[in-house]
Order: sequence, then structure tokens, then C-alpha cells
Amino acid sequence: MNAEILCVGTELLLGDVVNTNATFIARGLAELGVGCYYQSVVGDNATRLEESLRLAFSRADMVITTGGLGPTYDDITKEIVAGYFGREMELHQPSLENIKAIFERFAPGRSFTKNNEKQAYMPVGATIFENGRGTAPGLAVEGDGKIAIMLPGPPGEMKAMFEEKVAPFLQARTDKTLLSRTVHLFGIGESMAESKLHDAMIERQNPTIAPYAKLGEVQLRLTASAPNKEEARRLLDPLEREVTALFPEHVYGVDVGDMQSALVTLLREKGLTIALCESCTGGMIAARITEVPGASQVLRCGVVSYSNESKANLVKVSGQTLETHGAVSQECALEMAQGVRSVSGADIGLAVTGIAGPGGGTDEKPVGLVFVACVGPWGEKIIELRLSRGYQGERGNIRNLACLNAMNLVLRQVWAN
Amino acid sequence: MNAEILCVGTELLLGDVVNTNATFIARGLAELGVGCYYQSVVGDNATRLEESLRLAFSRADMVITTGGLGPTYDDITKEIVAGYFGREMELHQPSLENIKAIFERFAPGRSFTKNNEKQAYMPVGATIFENGRGTAPGLAVEGDGKIAIMLPGPPGEMKAMFEEKVAPFLQARTDKTLLSRTVHLFGIGESMAESKLHDAMIERQNPTIAPYAKLGEVQLRLTASAPNKEEARRLLDPLEREVTALFPEHVYGVDVGDMQSALVTLLREKGLTIALCESCTGGMIAARITEVPGASQVLRCGVVSYSNESKANLVKVSGQTLETHGAVSQECALEMAQGVRSVSGADIGLAVTGIAGPGGGTDEKPVGLVFVACVGPWGEKIIELRLSRGYQGERGNIRNLACLNAMNLVLRQVWAN
Repeated sequence: MNAEILCVGTELLLGDVVNTNATFIARGLAELGVGCYYQSVVGDNATRLEESLRLAFSRADMVITTGGLGPTYDDITKEIVAGYFGREMELHQPSLENIKAIFERFAPGRSFTKNNEKQAYMPVGATIFENGRGTAPGLAVEGDGKIAIMLPGPPGEMKAMFEEKVAPFLQARTDKTLLSRTVHLFGIGESMAESKLHDAMIERQNPTIAPYAKLGEVQLRLTASAPNKEEARRLLDPLEREVTALFPEHVYGVDVGDMQSALVTLLREKGLTIALCESCTGGMIAARITEVPGASQVLRCGVVSYSNESKANLVKVSGQTLETHGAVSQECALEMAQGVRSVSGADIGLAVTGIAGPGGGTDEKPVGLVFVACVGPWGEKIIELRLSRGYQGERGNIRNLACLNAMNLVLRQVWAN
Repeated sequence: MNAEILCVGTELLLGDVVNTNATFIARGLAELGVGCYYQSVVGDNATRLEESLRLAFSRADMVITTGGLGPTYDDITKEIVAGYFGREMELHQPSLENIKAIFERFAPGRSFTKNNEKQAYMPVGATIFENGRGTAPGLAVEGDGKIAIMLPGPPGEMKAMFEEKVAPFLQARTDKTLLSRTVHLFGIGESMAESKLHDAMIERQNPTIAPYAKLGEVQLRLTASAPNKEEARRLLDPLEREVTALFPEHVYGVDVGDMQSALVTLLREKGLTIALCESCTGGMIAARITEVPGASQVLRCGVVSYSNESKANLVKVSGQTLETHGAVSQECALEMAQGVRSVSGADIGLAVTGIAGPGGGTDEKPVGLVFVACVGPWGEKIIELRLSRGYQGERGNIRNLACLNAMNLVLRQVWAN
């Protein structure tokens, strides 16, 4: 089975919104083992949408659309697809009741118009995917060996529907189960990671290994295909062991989501608390840690010591250290970590100081120079980073990489002690 | 003139990366007044790329591609386009020298391979766009009323090249100048903003008004087309006045980029400093303000008081306030703002406390309840927010909206005093 993704919406053609829907569906299809050779975007225009749909079905068995399921006159996806399959539209009573219930709950003052009823009309014989987060249901229409799957445009609604309804719908149409795990690596580039994986591993067909690169991180996605979950797990286990053993210094977790989640989970498991003192990262580490629900169990406090006075007042960095070594120095980083640990009573003090640029660099202390200090019950550890190589040296990148390096340092320190 | 966007790369089809390139080019074309009815994505496959190129040229005068200009065997965009136009490939000496210079500067250890030379081979007669941020140059090939513009895939390289080289290249092919201004609104929804604009304004053809919605914000993009910049400015000035007058409580700037930039600029102009005490936003406001280069001139410090102890120790919230009113209360918000202002010596103290969820809500204090306090030389102001309506009430959204409301409060307070 192969598929095409067809995203409908003039706002995409005008560049008003980024097409994260296509990316999400593409990744979902890849994980389900469904091939996809084309993605297209077309506006809310009947003629062009119909032509695009015919073209897609001339190349693929399945077309997944997003957008054009809403209540207004320019929402036409269902009608065009119904036309392609030669189906009439009919009222789907459960959808109508659901839409009315949503209106009563979330917009009690607003009147329910004929427009809103439009969202409950469906091609005859369609499979309906209830929308848990919005009014427009999704749907699938099948005929003559072709399947059209129509999903709403708002990414929150689309993603939930894809995961909860469409993935099982497609899974049921294949005789195999796909299971994936993600190995998270930090501090290694994608090409270096690929070259460390043996050729045999890269070329293996089942389970497969696919690397995904992000700034400072590489994720290795292991995917097994088997008749059932048990069997898939049996295929994945040895590969996971093999892969993680190849990168002992770089793996920071398997299926952990992101580094802040890994860190909060680890600290919670160990019953450790942390306090932060951030200079060049300016609160980014605190903001990321507090993204994770339940972070309050591990984060005591954060200090953004953007001025020398705040370094002295809030976390007791000595005036002499600032004078002799400057705010960007390993001495200052250490005193910041010690200071915030002591004022907060946290188990771990983590501090970052550096030059994020674009201004403020000197020959001796260039843009991209960052010191990270981590002080815990086991002692202290300071690292010096140079984050300005090649084309990566922009303020945002330097700050991002400083965050990741700092959180990674804590993970390594907790594991080692 | 109308155009299509054709993005080349298997990584896009697999969902490994989000196609921000298409969005960026789409917006650029819209601003240049170039129509665009289709976007497509195709993998690094010669047959499918060639078919997609032919299809695109059957519908449009211009095709803009991204990706496939690199040094490896699966980078084939230039060769396929050359084939379409019936052109040979030839070595472009300035590009070769440029690539060699980049290698010497950024990868002095690495050897320059034949592969890298491939990037300097161009279709005969092509216009070359030098790449200021990477090795692969961009290019344009024209013939028989058709233009192909090929840009590199990495977004940083592509965006810079589009703005610096492609936009002027296209501009020179039209007899008009387009000039845009963005009016930034906060605290009003897109549909409300649209309904406040008179029909006459929405339907006007020159200058045009296009609304873009983001979480909590609406941007109104005013675009004038004229024979020259002076004339375009003369068209924009009265419309800008008219539009900003319609939204006195919502406009926070014109062409200011984002709210943190507007805030840093305003505080710098007024010679004011600020200090932050964040609870539920957990450092996000500090992280955003410090995104802006030069933020150190206005930000004294930030405190992320995630625990009650840190509220008491670092910013001197009284134990009685915490006991009587709780950490999420206007009393606590006020003491946090006063406290951080006093310990830092900043002119303005800004504090946020609330319940971001998903846990921690009660009937009396539900998820989404947030208090923001701003204390300045002029006195104090506290606002209470309920950020949990409809489908918006997720942790990330609540935190984001709390940040925006807090920064907006400071802007309004500084303007009013």
C-alpha cells in the first residue's frame, strides 16, 4: 500500500502557517510501513482540489487530506471526495449531536447555525472518526481499491485523530504490527552517528534504524515489523542493546521524549532536587524543565543572574571572583552553582555563564564560550564549551546548545554517582 | 506571473523534518505579489522529480525548488532542471573557488573531494546566487518564458539566499515595488479583529490587509504596491494610522518583530530596568526577553520561584501571605513583584503565579487561573487571568498566554505612565 498526502488550505499557499500536518502524517505513515512518494498543497478551490485528488489517486492507493472540513462555504474537501467516489452526502446523526454538545459546552452563548450542521454531512458509506478536540469529524471513504482519509486542518485535532483513530484503522488493514523505539543521543553529529552504526545495522530491513537529527541531538528510531507486539518486542530488544552499547557516552535515554523529560524523570526517581543559576541561557533551562508536568517535585528555584549585581546579591558570587576572573569564567560558574544550591537547599546546583553574542566577545573570550558548573552531594564538575564553530554560532543556537549541554551534564553526574 | 514551490528531499517524505522552506517561500511570493496555487514535495528520485517538474511547469511560469544541490550522488535537482531546459553542465569557477575557501575556513582538516566539486557545476547560462552560509550555491535558469529557481535545502541557507538574492531578482522582473508593514495586536482574536476592520478595508486591493493569527496574537500585514518605495510609503501611511486607531487597546507595535523585542526596545528607550519573578511560567519570560540581543541593558535578574521556600527566601514573600492566600493569589503575585524589584533595584518588578496544569487545579482555583503583578515607580497593577477556555487550556498554551499577558501588561503600564 502506498499513500499521498494532500493538504488543503489557502493559508498554506500564502505561507500563513507552517505545514506541520504533512510532517506528522508522513512520519506516521513511515512508521506504519506505508510508502509515500508525494506530498501536495492546494488551496480552497474546487477545480484545483479535484485535479489534485485525481492526480494523487492515479499514483497511489490511498490519499490522506487535511483541511477543508469546517463549517464555511470554502470548506469543500468532503464534497470533492464524495464526487470522486460517486457518493451522495447524508446527515450523520451522531456527529450532529456531538457538534451540538460541543457548542453547548464551549460556546453556550453562540447560536448553532446551519453552517455548523454542514460539518455533520458525510458521504454515504463513510467511516467516521470522532473529533475529541473540535467540531469537524474526520472520515474515510473506500471504493475500487482506493481509500481517501480526510482529517481536520487544526494540528491539535489532526494529530490526536491520526494517533487515536487513523493509525489503528490502517493497522487493521495490514497483517503486521509495527513497533518503534527511539534511542536519544546527545553530543554526536548525525554523520558520526551513522558511521558508528555498522553497515549491517543500517542495511537491515527488520528491524530498521532511521536517524533523525536535531540541533545537538540525534535520535535513532528502531522499528520492527512482526505478526504481533510480542514478536516485535523480541526483535527490538537485542537491537536496542546493540545500539545503546555503541554509544555509551551519548545515549541519554530510550523513548524519553526529550532531555528535560529525561532529567525530571531521573531526578524524581532518585529523589533529588535541583536549583538553577542561568546567565547566558537567561531562564531557558528553567523554562524547559517546567514544561514537564510535575517539575515542581524536582525544581526548587531558578535564578537568572543577568547582571553582576544579581550574581552577587542573589547567589553570593564574590566581588573578587567577578573582578579577577570576570562573569564568564569557570570560577564564576562554580560560585553560581554553589550559591544557588546553598540559598535553595537543593541537592544539585547547576549554573551556566557564557557569551551568547552577537556582541560581547573578545579574542580571549569569544562569542560561544560557555562554562557550565554542576555541584551535587558527590562534588563538583565544570565544563568549558566552545559553541561557535562553523555556521552554528548564532545567539539562538549557542543558547540552545548551552541548555542541552547543561542538562546533559546533570544526567551524567547523577548516573555516575 | 505565477509560481509553484517544489521541495525535493526524501527526509521531507519521511517526516524527518518540517517543511518550513515551503512556508517561507510561499510568504515571500505572496509579498512579492506572485501567485502560487500548488506546493509539492518529492523525494530524491530522478524519475519522480522530473515528472513533478514537468507538471509544475505545465501549470506555472516559475518553479522554485529547494534541496538536492549538495555534493552527494542523490543530489540531482540541477541535473534534472538542466535536462528540462536542454542545457549542458559546466564548471562555474567562482563557485568552485568559493567552496574551496569555505572548506579552508571551516574544515581545515578535511580533504576537498571530487564530490564537493560537483556543487560548482552549473547548467550553461544559469544565474548563480552565492551562498553566504553554506557550500551549495543557488541558481536560476530561464528559457521559453519559464524560470526555474533552485535553492539549497538547509533553511538557514535558503532563507538568507531568498531574502538577499532571490527577492531582488524577482523584484527586478516586475515593474512595481511592494512594501509591507505589520501591525501587531494582542488580546484580540482573529475573527474579532477581522470584524472590526471595515469591509472596505478588507476588500481594498492596494494596499491590502492580511491577518495572521498566532496564539494570543494577531498580526495585520499591510502591503502596498507602487512604482517606487516613496509612493508605496505614501499609500501605507494613512492605512497604518486608520488601522492602529481601530485597535487602541490591542496594538502593541508596528514592525516590532515580537512582544519581547517591543518590550526590550521600549524599556531601553525609557532607560528603565526590569526584574522578573516567575512561578507558573517557570523562566519563559526571562528566556524570551534574553532572546533579544542587548537585553542585558534592561533585565536585572529573574527568579523562578517554583517552591514556596524560594518565594520566601529569594523575594521575601511573607509566610502569612502564602498561608492565608496561597501561592496562587493576587497578594502573592504582588509581593513577588515588590520583592524582586526590591532585591534587584530594578525600576519595574513583574511577577506571574498561576496553575498551568494538568494537575493542581481546584474548584476555587482551577487550572488556567493566573495572576500577574507589575510594580513600577508609578505604582502597582495586578491582573487576574482565566486561560482555560475551550480547547486552549493545555499546559503549554496557558504558560504561553501567561507570558504574553505579562509582557503586554508592562508595555501598557510604561506607556500609561
